[in-house]
Formats: sequence, C-alpha cells, structure tokens
Amino acid sequence: MSLENISSNRSFGGWHKQYTHTSRTVHSNMRFAIFLPPQASESNRVPVLYWLSGLTCSDENFMQKAGAHRVAAELGIAIVAPDTSPRGDNIPDDPEGAYDFGIGAGFYLNATEAPWNRFYHMYDYVVKELPAVIEAHFPVSDVKAISGHSMGGHGALTIALKNSDDYRSVSAFSPIVNPAAVPWGEKAFSNYLGEDRKTWLEYDSCALIKKAEKHLPMLIDQGDGDQFLHEQLKPGNLLQAAEEAGYPLELRMQEGYDHSYYFISSFIEDHLRFHGEHLK
Amino acid sequence: MSLENISSNRSFGGWHKQYTHTSRTVHSNMRFAIFLPPQASESNRVPVLYWLSGLTCSDENFMQKAGAHRVAAELGIAIVAPDTSPRGDNIPDDPEGAYDFGIGAGFYLNATEAPWNRFYHMYDYVVKELPAVIEAHFPVSDVKAISGHSMGGHGALTIALKNSDDYRSVSAFSPIVNPAAVPWGEKAFSNYLGEDRKTWLEYDSCALIKKAEKHLPMLIDQGDGDQFLHEQLKPGNLLQAAEEAGYPLELRMQEGYDHSYYFISSFIEDHLRFHGEHLK
Repeated sequence: MSLENISSNRSFGGWHKQYTHTSRTVHSNMRFAIFLPPQASESNRVPVLYWLSGLTCSDENFMQKAGAHRVAAELGIAIVAPDTSPRGDNIPDDPEGAYDFGIGAGFYLNATEAPWNRFYHMYDYVVKELPAVIEAHFPVSDVKAISGHSMGGHGALTIALKNSDDYRSVSAFSPIVNPAAVPWGEKAFSNYLGEDRKTWLEYDSCALIKKAEKHLPMLIDQGDGDQFLHEQLKPGNLLQAAEEAGYPLELRMQEGYDHSYYFISSFIEDHLRFHGEHLK
Repeated sequence: MSLENISSNRSFGGWHKQYTHTSRTVHSNMRFAIFLPPQASESNRVPVLYWLSGLTCSDENFMQKAGAHRVAAELGIAIVAPDTSPRGDNIPDDPEGAYDFGIGAGFYLNATEAPWNRFYHMYDYVVKELPAVIEAHFPVSDVKAISGHSMGGHGALTIALKNSDDYRSVSAFSPIVNPAAVPWGEKAFSNYLGEDRKTWLEYDSCALIKKAEKHLPMLIDQGDGDQFLHEQLKPGNLLQAAEEAGYPLELRMQEGYDHSYYFISSFIEDHLRFHGEHLK
C-alpha cells in the first residue's frame, strides 16, 4: 500500500495533497486528494468526510471549487476526495466516449458484467480499500461521514444506507436518488449490472431506504433551477420512500440554484457543520 | 455597447454571470464575469472590486476557485473579472505558443509595437472601457477597488498607481512588482513595448510608486513557498521602493503558501474586508 505524493498546497493553515496508489480493488492506479486540517497530528487524529464527485469529475473539482477548506480547517475535519472511476489506457470506456458511462462515471457500484467487472468496483474501493489506505497513512481516526454531488450524491446515500455502522452522517447535493428509474441510471446499470433490474435495487437509494434498519442523520440540498431535476434527480421519490419507511430526511429545495459548483459552494458550510456535529 | 449573456448561476443569494461584448479597445470579442451580490439593485447600486487574473487565466479561474462570493455577498460588493488578453483566431500570439506571452498574457498594458499594438490594449480596456460597460449595464456605482494575482497583481498595482483618483484601495496576491527587471516582464515588455527600457517604467510598480502623488490603501499577500518568488516576483523590491517614497504598504509574507488558488482562497476574505472598509 505505497502512496506517491504528486502535489501539496498549503490551504487555510492545513494542507491539500494529491496522491496516486495502485488499487487492488479496481486493478489500476487511482488518484485521490486529501485536505488535512491544521489540527491533525499523530496525537490528535481527526475524523474524515469522504466526498464523492459527479459525472466527468476527478479528485480535483471539489477541492478547487467547493470552498470547503475554510470550515473544515475551523472544525478540524479531514476531507478525502477519490476519483470517479478507474482511469487509464487499459480501462474499458463508453464506446462513444459519452460523459455518463465508463471513465469518469463509475457510479460507485461493483460491476458484474464483462468487460466492466474487472475494473469498475468503485463501491468496494470507497467502502473498504480507500479508508484503509487513508487510516494507514494519515493522522486521521476511523470516524467517518460521507457526502457527494449528483452521481456522487447517489454514491454517498447508497453507501451510507448499506453501511450505516461505518458512517456517522450522510449528506448530498443534487443526488441521483432513484437511478433504477432514470436515464443516467438505466444506461449505467444495464451495462455494469446487466438486464436483471432486481440487481439494480442494491444501488438505488429509494429501494435501500425502505430496508434500512438504522437511521443516520441525512441532509440533502437540491436547487430548483437544476436542469437535471425532473428527468434524472427526482428527489421527491426519495422523500416519499423515506416517509413510507419512517426514515428521517431533511431535503432542502434551494430557490434558483442550478447543478453547478456555485450551488455547492453556497451551501457546503451547512453540510460541514452538520457533519461536524455528528463527527464529534 | 451590447452584451451577450452566456451563463448565469445563483451563488450565495446573488448571481454569477458571464458576458461577451465587442471591444472597441482591443478590437475583438471579450468575455468577462461578474458577481452581483444580493443587495445590488437599481435603487441600491453597489461598489465594484475589479479582479485581474494571472498568466494563462480567463475570467473563470477566480470566480470558480477563489471562494470570494461568500464575503462579497455579505459585504454587498460586486466583483468583475475580465479575461487576461484578447482571444481568438485573429489575435497574434506567441510564435511558440508559450504561456507567458500573447494570448492569456496581456500584462495589462497598451502595446506600442506591431503586430501587438492593434489588439493588446488591456490597460485601456480595464481602466476605461470595461468600467463604462459595467456601469451602463449593471446596478453598480462608480466606486471601485482593484486586486489581482501574479501578472494580475502587477496589473492591479500599476493601474491603481497611475489612476489613484479612480480607485479607493488596491491589493494583490503574489504580484510581479518589478517586471522591468525579471524574465516574465523582460520577454513581454520587449515585445509589446520595444527595446527602449525607459518606456517599460510606465508599467513597473517599483518605478511608479516613487512618482505617486496620492497614497492609496495597499495590501499585498505573498507566500514564502511560492516557486516564482525569487526569480519573478521580488516583493522586497517594491517594499524598498515604497519605503524610499514614503508610500504606506502592507506586505504580508505567508509561511508555506505557494502560487496557487489555494493560497488566494485562504486569504481572499482579508482582502475583501480590506476593500470593503474603503468602499463604504
């Protein structure tokens, strides 16, 4: 489990750093970014917020654009941002290079269908391998929360719902909450998981929330000016499923906001303080 | 003076918008971005901070990466970020496509040498045309401050020193303070202005500060881990010139910080509050 450091930037008294490592889970080199707040040291291991990004993104988008370091530095929370898929010349990709499948679009699942199933195991990477790497190499504790945007909001919600003992809290911006029933999810799941739609429900928040035994604090922000709201995101489906299941969920509709990082940066402070309360 | 709106994003209760317009000063289409805080209206025109970006940048870098909207929204300050040069197939560029001259590297001067002198008039564009466009089309007042990074820090300092009645305050991150004496400046000025080095001093902060009749509030932040510090930036030269001239200047050396936007985002709040005091 050796890491290669490829960049370091001082930020708000802490450090932003990028690393690559060879992942045994996705059989390729993976890059991730970590923000270490000034409080982090071997004698003061800090909790970690995992951030999962959306379609087309890498480890860089959130770190550069979300404006999250200020409050993470204040609260003493590390942030880890993995890439959104394996990446490289040997990784199978959408045959037409589309943005919504293949490289940059791993959907945080374990693919079962060839040729995707050798590489596209982003679920196991985020749930198991990455936290082990992070906890072995950095001054962080095993106290975790998880958040994400769009496809990464889907990842954060599904991973938290399936591993509720591993995370203290979960939040999302503009998440794909019902991928089994929308075009982005139908394309990705039919390729990664095959045509048996029952298997898709293992990665669908609207299905998973009905089976959840333990309730995690859950916060979702959604812009009502988001171009993907009605066709791909459908937050009302999760709200309805949560109500049927008696699962407490705070869904905030934010007037006029779109799908961009300007939306995320406007509300990331609320999410960090929400997680900060539960990471104590 | 018609503007074409090409993007709009709600941000911190205000708006980030991008526009293009045909500039009579640089004889090409120019793009700029504006952040309008929630307080801005026809009956409450707000002051403007002009932000000048560094080499290779466009109007987007600062708006996406600096995390400036939060405090600008709190203080009721608009921010305008122009491009760093004219841009397009008809614009002459560095023959080898280097990053430090030509497109993306206008150096905020009025070129006198062919073929640059028809297009590269970024000084007049920033000082005259752009504020006229902004004040004609948006709910802003004519109360202005100016700031920038690296080449844009050079632009902010030289423009403020030469037009001290037009700006209330000036600040810079990692500015090129003595371009007439460093490689970036020598390459750009010899091409844009010709070989007579006396003409270069019209765009050199170390020379201009000695001639300044009116003193503006001036704040500079410089990371001591900046890879360009000793060869290209040389803030000590400006500090010495300011002391000789009796010009008050606050230069803050920031330990461990580099030349990136992680540095800018860490201290932009201080700059916004500094300008906010003088824009009242």
